[in-house]
Amino acid sequence: MTKKIGVGLLGYAFMGKAHSHAFKDMPHFFWPAPAIPELITIFGRTESKVKEAAENFGFKRYTTDWREVIKDKEVEILDNSLPNDMHAEPSIAAIEAGKHVLCEKPLARNSKEAKEMFEVARRSSVKTMVAFNYRFVPAVVLAREIVRSGKLGRIYHFRARYLQDWIVDPNFPLVWRLVKEKAGSGPLGDLGSHIIDLARFILGEVTAVSAVTRTFINERPLPEDPTKKGEVTVEDAFAAVLEFENGAIGTFEASRFATGRKNYNNFEINGEKGSIEFNLERLNELRFYSADGEAKTLGWSEILVTEKDHPYISHYWPSGHIIGWEHTFINEVYHFIDAIVNDKKIEPYGATFEDGYKNAVILDAILESAETGKRVTIKF
Amino acid sequence: MTKKIGVGLLGYAFMGKAHSHAFKDMPHFFWPAPAIPELITIFGRTESKVKEAAENFGFKRYTTDWREVIKDKEVEILDNSLPNDMHAEPSIAAIEAGKHVLCEKPLARNSKEAKEMFEVARRSSVKTMVAFNYRFVPAVVLAREIVRSGKLGRIYHFRARYLQDWIVDPNFPLVWRLVKEKAGSGPLGDLGSHIIDLARFILGEVTAVSAVTRTFINERPLPEDPTKKGEVTVEDAFAAVLEFENGAIGTFEASRFATGRKNYNNFEINGEKGSIEFNLERLNELRFYSADGEAKTLGWSEILVTEKDHPYISHYWPSGHIIGWEHTFINEVYHFIDAIVNDKKIEPYGATFEDGYKNAVILDAILESAETGKRVTIKF
Amino acid sequence: MTKKIGVGLLGYAFMGKAHSHAFKDMPHFFWPAPAIPELITIFGRTESKVKEAAENFGFKRYTTDWREVIKDKEVEILDNSLPNDMHAEPSIAAIEAGKHVLCEKPLARNSKEAKEMFEVARRSSVKTMVAFNYRFVPAVVLAREIVRSGKLGRIYHFRARYLQDWIVDPNFPLVWRLVKEKAGSGPLGDLGSHIIDLARFILGEVTAVSAVTRTFINERPLPEDPTKKGEVTVEDAFAAVLEFENGAIGTFEASRFATGRKNYNNFEINGEKGSIEFNLERLNELRFYSADGEAKTLGWSEILVTEKDHPYISHYWPSGHIIGWEHTFINEVYHFIDAIVNDKKIEPYGATFEDGYKNAVILDAILESAETGKRVTIKF
Amino acid sequence: MTKKIGVGLLGYAFMGKAHSHAFKDMPHFFWPAPAIPELITIFGRTESKVKEAAENFGFKRYTTDWREVIKDKEVEILDNSLPNDMHAEPSIAAIEAGKHVLCEKPLARNSKEAKEMFEVARRSSVKTMVAFNYRFVPAVVLAREIVRSGKLGRIYHFRARYLQDWIVDPNFPLVWRLVKEKAGSGPLGDLGSHIIDLARFILGEVTAVSAVTRTFINERPLPEDPTKKGEVTVEDAFAAVLEFENGAIGTFEASRFATGRKNYNNFEINGEKGSIEFNLERLNELRFYSADGEAKTLGWSEILVTEKDHPYISHYWPSGHIIGWEHTFINEVYHFIDAIVNDKKIEPYGATFEDGYKNAVILDAILESAETGKRVTIKF
Repeated sequence: MTKKIGVGLLGYAFMGKAHSHAFKDMPHFFWPAPAIPELITIFGRTESKVKEAAENFGFKRYTTDWREVIKDKEVEILDNSLPNDMHAEPSIAAIEAGKHVLCEKPLARNSKEAKEMFEVARRSSVKTMVAFNYRFVPAVVLAREIVRSGKLGRIYHFRARYLQDWIVDPNFPLVWRLVKEKAGSGPLGDLGSHIIDLARFILGEVTAVSAVTRTFINERPLPEDPTKKGEVTVEDAFAAVLEFENGAIGTFEASRFATGRKNYNNFEINGEKGSIEFNLERLNELRFYSADGEAKTLGWSEILVTEKDHPYISHYWPSGHIIGWEHTFINEVYHFIDAIVNDKKIEPYGATFEDGYKNAVILDAILESAETGKRVTIKF
Repeated sequence: MTKKIGVGLLGYAFMGKAHSHAFKDMPHFFWPAPAIPELITIFGRTESKVKEAAENFGFKRYTTDWREVIKDKEVEILDNSLPNDMHAEPSIAAIEAGKHVLCEKPLARNSKEAKEMFEVARRSSVKTMVAFNYRFVPAVVLAREIVRSGKLGRIYHFRARYLQDWIVDPNFPLVWRLVKEKAGSGPLGDLGSHIIDLARFILGEVTAVSAVTRTFINERPLPEDPTKKGEVTVEDAFAAVLEFENGAIGTFEASRFATGRKNYNNFEINGEKGSIEFNLERLNELRFYSADGEAKTLGWSEILVTEKDHPYISHYWPSGHIIGWEHTFINEVYHFIDAIVNDKKIEPYGATFEDGYKNAVILDAILESAETGKRVTIKF
Repeated sequence: MTKKIGVGLLGYAFMGKAHSHAFKDMPHFFWPAPAIPELITIFGRTESKVKEAAENFGFKRYTTDWREVIKDKEVEILDNSLPNDMHAEPSIAAIEAGKHVLCEKPLARNSKEAKEMFEVARRSSVKTMVAFNYRFVPAVVLAREIVRSGKLGRIYHFRARYLQDWIVDPNFPLVWRLVKEKAGSGPLGDLGSHIIDLARFILGEVTAVSAVTRTFINERPLPEDPTKKGEVTVEDAFAAVLEFENGAIGTFEASRFATGRKNYNNFEINGEKGSIEFNLERLNELRFYSADGEAKTLGWSEILVTEKDHPYISHYWPSGHIIGWEHTFINEVYHFIDAIVNDKKIEPYGATFEDGYKNAVILDAILESAETGKRVTIKF
Repeated sequence: MTKKIGVGLLGYAFMGKAHSHAFKDMPHFFWPAPAIPELITIFGRTESKVKEAAENFGFKRYTTDWREVIKDKEVEILDNSLPNDMHAEPSIAAIEAGKHVLCEKPLARNSKEAKEMFEVARRSSVKTMVAFNYRFVPAVVLAREIVRSGKLGRIYHFRARYLQDWIVDPNFPLVWRLVKEKAGSGPLGDLGSHIIDLARFILGEVTAVSAVTRTFINERPLPEDPTKKGEVTVEDAFAAVLEFENGAIGTFEASRFATGRKNYNNFEINGEKGSIEFNLERLNELRFYSADGEAKTLGWSEILVTEKDHPYISHYWPSGHIIGWEHTFINEVYHFIDAIVNDKKIEPYGATFEDGYKNAVILDAILESAETGKRVTIKF
């Protein structure tokens, strides 16, 4: 009989729905599973909603006090899917209570807070991971393999943009993601953290940044009372030039004002022997140019990353039967539970709290450069 | 507390994995669910494998005698995911035992067998549905809406091709899908049935066909003893011209010899006011050309069918977060259970056994035309 | 000093503009040119228009009697860009007068007329060529090279469709292309002749056809008096299944009712080791799938056919600087003049009058099959 | 009889071939032409080559002394297609001699030199234009129309990258484009000047830049003696963040080290009501997203910019018959001659010497920011 592992979840909204699904769904595909997740308890602030979520998602119980989750003896994994201002305290408490912690990205609102979390994690013996789920897209893992194998040779360029358009309407309300105290930053932390993580995952360390930010709409209706407006205290977009340890340079951008771009996490890497392009809206594909081969037939290749030899795919469906966005979480949860049960390392495929901290340092540097108008050197 | 509904499943292979997943996963997304499926029992011929499948998929019990499934009192839905030669007998037995039946496509090996199944279903009061799952792709439902709303005006052309490449290697073994007695036909029944069903779903009835078939590799190694070869008794590809009741014409093709096409179910519809194109390998997208609007900005539009207003999408993720192939089954299972619990009609969104029968008549006509070299008029 | 060669042109409309341009433009790119074309005389029925065309295109003189062009001593090449009913008589007269003849496609209105032209050409010593200009698209020549080199292995499928939408409006007038007496057939001869020529050029001979045709709009306004209507006497679309000598099968279609498709000459070839796709609206590109190579990185490659190693490209611009539709004629005219001046063969890159005749036989067979509802075997 | 206008050309290489072709070809398409260009004389340093070019391109005479071209009485237009270090002196001399001047981009090696040229041009009465030919791509003009008409609303982002790969090989020789004294800068002036010009043409003025540059290969073989190496004195790539007068921000990049990108001049503009994307390798297309219309059918539209209502297209071919890269020069030359003959303004469609100067100021600022690590405010 397969071992079970108890899960406590903080948050029932977008991320809560995705994470709880992944825990339940994982053993159907990863079989035999390292352990079968048991959904023990779920925390949310609004009782009626968390009660409903517990039934919908299949948790045994629910609570409106997050400390209850950490105290719960059956809980072995604490999954923190709360807003950014609620990452540090519960995650630290859980680590100190001996729970394994999977925390949503960005790790914290800024590098100071992230460093504290990383320090606690470093001193503990539990497994900790930041939920940078796009590391678990098969095409992204393949991109990393291609780069790390040397197939592209020396890398010259890494350009990335993560574009969405969900707040273009000036009457879109002032949700928590637009409030600095809760979110830390705007699309920088929400979207930019992803593309910076992918650049570090695939290529390597960032050494300097030069950036600008913009807030296009300064006031928005309050969610609780749309007749009143409140101030938007984060940026609406950022644009930056990044320099990498290996000598490569690149442009990085994120925006919630790119009309028509829905979830356009797009990066391109150019090396001396080839190039790669990825777009999350077509996450089953990787575009690849190799300068090897007969000159006449060279071209950008659309790899349909659904073959059994591709990362994670043997667990799913036959060739050409695509997977969706939610599968990134299934792969992630598998990786985390496998690391716990079989005492494997989180890195390099998973993002550690150290990765989360270094990511936060780069985000802070981008804000600093935007403010000062000066190139900022990255120091961890 | 949400009602439960008992499911018995025949088959644990590719389709068994997809169907059992859909039953389990459905209530996570369709909430409140019309009923929560309970996985009661699963049938397979090989005990060790069906036992393993039962644990992996989460069934309470398993059996190597399909009649046990039908006798099982807790089973309310019989899901028949067996090879084509095992569609008729168990499905008919289940209907007669008062079970609702979801049967994999094609409904049967030929129109005679399909007619018998349809007749039994017609006389019964249970719900019966053929698992033409591509009717449940959001982009396909949107395509139908666009056509049926008149946005394309009079339809002139419907062309479809379903291309795969998994048996290009002459040493690929003689699996059941290559044996007429078990499969009825080759890619015609396997893939062609899908595109013909979609044409009927979206556009309407077929009136005549002219066709050719080819078997490119006549002998293949036996699965049980690869040193011996057996005869391929089905076609490897077909190509046909179809005529529709509304006056439209079209070309239809399916092949397992289209190297590089993995699951390329592709159709294009041209009408007097616009056109549509779909490709299953990018199932979250629909290409749409509308001749309405300012001349200078007309063009083929790539609709990312992931908005909350799109069919089924409100149950899943925010804009731009794509779904995968398996979600067609989740939508299908929801539709079937909703029809059962709330006594709704299977049609027009689900394929009835009548659709399954008519589909089989067209497949037979294609084989007849290929053999005689004459256009065959469709008579139901 | 480079040799000169005198050109007489019949027709000043669409094709006249394209052909005269090609003659003038060729030596700029193909240098040293085999001979520099001199534009001697141009024929058109309407004096004011042909006079204007002569000045615009740069002809020394003009005439409203096509026999004058053939009598003209300075004319060495007769370029026949007239409507289809004016292909046979002037082309035959020119051949008999010892002029080299480049005749627009289709060679004639039917195979009987085409055969007569082919017989006259065969008996003469002048160079004769049918202006199937898409043989001169660099990407098409590359496609042929790939197929003929064996890179795709045995070919299983060739599917082609040539779609336009310029007569979707029922008030579009009854131009000569819609009148059987002048055009011979509709999109079959106009567009279908191109895709059938490309299939023969790239793959080989056709052995049988099964087809349907449709006329969607039966009456249209007369060009000379839009208050009156005349009968459309050609098909508006055809769809056919073709069988090839090598065992391959394919679907072929042409239509002027494919809204949103402007000049969509698209073909796909599937072989045991790879596949190819082409689309005239992106004529600088060839899509290529090769099953050779590392499994993980296989994919459909977009070859930008603008490298100096690609057919004809060394005469034009550096890598990535695309050419246009008119360049097919420049390449064609170069090929024809090179064949004349250096006594080279027209085939295999140019289409001979024999190709034109065989093409016409296949077109006739498609019409016959559509009428009789029977597969028609091709006999030349 | 159409008026004639005499042309003198400096340079017979890549640009000389393109410009001379455009002058000859223009009246075939733009008819009646404002004037028919007469190719009078061509200058080049190597006599044997310029003699050959004169015959190939159709010039009446040639010279190895550029001052002869300016003295030539028949020359009314001086077309300067020489390397960047030869832009200022001959262009100024020609203006002072009363010739109209079309000068290749970038206008000069730096803003100081460009300012001098602009000042001379401003004081004269001749027509002067910088050959920023991508302003004459029909899709680019359409993009400008869409932005300027307000269809996209307020513009938030303009991102552009111009990527090539022709010097990735470290053994590619040290041609003039890699030598600061001759070229002024590397891909910044060669490619970056184009995308900055397009941003100014379409959106408006730039106010600040933050940038980095990189030289990846520091030494290369000398063209005249490949056994010796010389220093690369320009950058191999730049990456910058730009800020615009209207509040928009954007990333701009150019590189000759983007393997697989051949002539990838790509920009994307995001506004509150829609977005636009362009790629020079598919110059007949414009991608357009409009948030207007029914929510279900919104998507990125591929406009095939070959309709008669599109800019310049009525002069060429029917719908769907694409034009090539060289047509940008044909349109440009038409615009310039029309301005001369009919005394029209160069702007806004053509780039004036003032545009050339302002472009140079931005290029200088990018180099300064890269060197100092500080944001540089643009001052003209």
